[in-house]
Amino acid sequence: MKKNKKERQSLLVETIKETPFITDEELAEKFQVSVQTIRLDRLELSIPELRERIKTVAQTRLDDVRALTIEEVIGEMIDLQLDESAISILDIKREHVFSRTNIARGHHLFAQANSLAVAIIDDELALTASAEIRFVRQVKAGERVVAKAKVTKRGSDRTVVDVTSFVDKETVFSGKFLMYRS
Amino acid sequence: MKKNKKERQSLLVETIKETPFITDEELAEKFQVSVQTIRLDRLELSIPELRERIKTVAQTRLDDVRALTIEEVIGEMIDLQLDESAISILDIKREHVFSRTNIARGHHLFAQANSLAVAIIDDELALTASAEIRFVRQVKAGERVVAKAKVTKRGSDRTVVDVTSFVDKETVFSGKFLMYRS
Repeated sequence: MKKNKKERQSLLVETIKETPFITDEELAEKFQVSVQTIRLDRLELSIPELRERIKTVAQTRLDDVRALTIEEVIGEMIDLQLDESAISILDIKREHVFSRTNIARGHHLFAQANSLAVAIIDDELALTASAEIRFVRQVKAGERVVAKAKVTKRGSDRTVVDVTSFVDKETVFSGKFLMYRS
Repeated sequence: MKKNKKERQSLLVETIKETPFITDEELAEKFQVSVQTIRLDRLELSIPELRERIKTVAQTRLDDVRALTIEEVIGEMIDLQLDESAISILDIKREHVFSRTNIARGHHLFAQANSLAVAIIDDELALTASAEIRFVRQVKAGERVVAKAKVTKRGSDRTVVDVTSFVDKETVFSGKFLMYRS
C-alpha cells in the first residue's frame, strides 16, 4: 500500500538506519515511489547518499590489502582491518546469474567471500587451504550482497576467516575459510 | 636429461597412457624437445592428437545439460552422463591467476567444479545448498585442470556430487557438493 509522505519519510529513516547499504532504487521499489522522490526525501531529511553512508558505517580504517591487489578483490571493499575484519559489497548483475532462473551463480558469491578472506590476511602470501560453505537463500539480479569477514582463529601459519553475506538483513551465504599464510 | 628417440617414444606412449589429457606443449617440455618433434613422434606412433584422445577416454555419452546452458559450464565439458558422472577441462590462463604469485585463484577451480556439479543433475533446476572443498595444491598458469564429478548419493530432492580436480595425475582440488533439485 502506498504511504503518505510523512509516513514514508519516517519509515525511510527507519529503513536506512537498519539497512544502511540499501540503494535509492531499492527504496523506491519498497515504497512504490520514483527514485526521484526518494532522492528528494533524502534531501529534506538530510540523509546522505549511499556512498557517503557506506563510508560512515564502514568507518575508521581501510587498510591496504597485502595478499592481493585491490583490483583482485571481487566486489567493492569498503572496510578492511587486517587480521581482524573486512566488508565488501557486490551488486548482482545480469552476468552473475543463470540465464534461465535469474538466480546468482554460486561461484560469484564464493568469489566475493573468498577474496575477502584472502584480503583480510596481513601477509604477502595468503592461500585458501579449505572451506565449508553454505548457500542459505537464492540471490537474484539487482540485489546487493554485503559480505562481512571476521578472523576467528589465528595460528602461526593458519588463520580461520568466517564470512557471512547478507542481502538487506537476510543471510544468503556463509563460509568458513581456512587460510594458509607464509 | 635429454633422451634418444627410441627412449623418448617409449616414454611418450607410457606418459600419454597414464595422462591422456596432456598437451603436446607439456610433452615437449617434459622431454625437452620441440612441439614439432612431439607431433612427429605421435604420427610415427599413430597416437591421435589430444582432442581425439579426450573423446576416446571420455567415451560413449555426452548427454545434454539440463540445469544450465552449456555456455554456463566453466571449462570445457567433455563427458556427461546425467546423474552419474561428468568431466570437464579448464586451461589455467593469465586471467585465472593472482598477478603477484601466478597461482590460480581459488574461485576459478571452485567455479569449474561447482558448474560441473550443477551440470550433472538431471533436472531443470539444480542449486548448490552447501559444499566442503579443499585446495590440495597450487595450480599455475599454463596448467590444465581436469575435473571429474561423480554422483555419490541420490535422494528425492538432494544429491551429493563429489568432484576431484587433477593436473596430470595429481589432485589439486576436491569438493563435496550438496545439490538441491526441484
